[in-house]
Amino acid sequence: MTMEFWIDFASNYSYLSVMRIRQLAPDGVVWRPFLLGPIFKDAGWNNSPFVLQKDKGAYVWQDMPRQCAKYDLPWRQPSTFPRNSLLAARIGILCEEQPWMTDFCERTMLANFAEDRDIASEPCMTEILSALGQDANAILRAAQTDENKARLRERTVQAKARHIFGAPTFLVGDALFWGNDRLDDALAMALSSPQAPRKTAG
Amino acid sequence: MTMEFWIDFASNYSYLSVMRIRQLAPDGVVWRPFLLGPIFKDAGWNNSPFVLQKDKGAYVWQDMPRQCAKYDLPWRQPSTFPRNSLLAARIGILCEEQPWMTDFCERTMLANFAEDRDIASEPCMTEILSALGQDANAILRAAQTDENKARLRERTVQAKARHIFGAPTFLVGDALFWGNDRLDDALAMALSSPQAPRKTAG
Repeated sequence: MTMEFWIDFASNYSYLSVMRIRQLAPDGVVWRPFLLGPIFKDAGWNNSPFVLQKDKGAYVWQDMPRQCAKYDLPWRQPSTFPRNSLLAARIGILCEEQPWMTDFCERTMLANFAEDRDIASEPCMTEILSALGQDANAILRAAQTDENKARLRERTVQAKARHIFGAPTFLVGDALFWGNDRLDDALAMALSSPQAPRKTAG
Repeated sequence: MTMEFWIDFASNYSYLSVMRIRQLAPDGVVWRPFLLGPIFKDAGWNNSPFVLQKDKGAYVWQDMPRQCAKYDLPWRQPSTFPRNSLLAARIGILCEEQPWMTDFCERTMLANFAEDRDIASEPCMTEILSALGQDANAILRAAQTDENKARLRERTVQAKARHIFGAPTFLVGDALFWGNDRLDDALAMALSSPQAPRKTAG
């Protein structure tokens, strides 16, 4: 069965999973870009726990280069963290069923976590979309319509309903797996469960 | 070089690492039992984040049986979480250099996470120590002297000085690894670093 792949483009551990997914799941996944901010806000936090919890935050920047070395991924600590991922998420949700969605996600994550670029800027998004052969202007316009903004807000509602509290999150039916460290387990379940039960219509 | 193995007997992810360590590190580790409570208190929390953050807490009880199945470990969700681990930590810090420390840690963790027993009770600790051929009464007395209580408080000070924010934590020189998911990485560094640099006297 399919695996839903919930990511926030501002999330460094989402970066790891995005860069690994093409090789691990060549048949693809169900992309679910979303925003962690409203989830954190509900938890009473006005920022990422990696910013609010100083020791944990310092640890993350110790952990990430080691993880990237393990997965043979480039790494450059973002000079701003977390980056504003609203525009990227709006483009992501608009284009999540496009055949080039994996490319868009990889390039946006690399811009943030390997090139230290501001993914909130229209020029950055334009460059990425154009490099993929897409009409960047048309996509940027469509991404920022009221209809598409509402789509992203609805995604947040779905995330809360599915009890998502962090990113990346992998959903296989009703089973929730949190964090890049659970990507293999989630994929193993997806592969071994052709018709896993779903309690909710989701 | 050696790996410091920081555990709280109330911590379910510490349970996983404790049960894996004998096989993964047959030459042993430097045991560092401690209490997470004071660390969480410094973060502004009056309980485990698995209790305070409802969705994350619910996830943990979904994740643990899967993790235990993966590692072929018994699992029974504790009817009280987190259990009071003060007495076990005092015994642990008193006995951390004994040759039977690994046995004590395994049995205490199994009592908490496979048998749903109250590790805060003297009878539970007495049974475990006696089964290991130790003088349980003498150890319980020594564990609760002012001197040993002070030793555990000093351990908390050390934990904060080493920027520990969760359990299990593995320290290899100055390198910090957090969580059972990093046990293999920490051991790999310990094995490959015969004389890794240490910035602090520790």
